[in-house]
Amino acid sequence: MSHQYHFDVTMSCSGCSGAVNRVLSKLDGVSKLDISLEKQSVDVVTNLDYDTIYNTIAKTGKKINDGKIVA
Amino acid sequence: MSHQYHFDVTMSCSGCSGAVNRVLSKLDGVSKLDISLEKQSVDVVTNLDYDTIYNTIAKTGKKINDGKIVA
Repeated sequence: MSHQYHFDVTMSCSGCSGAVNRVLSKLDGVSKLDISLEKQSVDVVTNLDYDTIYNTIAKTGKKINDGKIVA
Repeated sequence: MSHQYHFDVTMSCSGCSGAVNRVLSKLDGVSKLDISLEKQSVDVVTNLDYDTIYNTIAKTGKKINDGKIVA
């Protein structure tokens, strides 16, 4: 089953957003990934649960300001 | 027993180096941490093993260009 999650993440440069992209891309089960440095946002479509995605982003050391299940 | 490890890590901004600092600071058993954005380096004194430190840095999504056990 596919879920959609949205996170507000502090990313200061393309190195920051690239790092978040790298760790999420490596996960098996992520079907869509939209990371915006401009919007400071991370949108994920996946069959993985919310906590798995949250924890993967948290382990990058980036600050997660908000997170929610969109669908 | 205390070990010293050195890593060359690609960090583009203070957000990048801050993220690496955050995840390593959270580890129990890291007694000294020296992260330089200018030198693109991460130096760690810890009683944890090399792989634990390596994997923690790898999970930030930053590129590790080199790593070695100094002492």
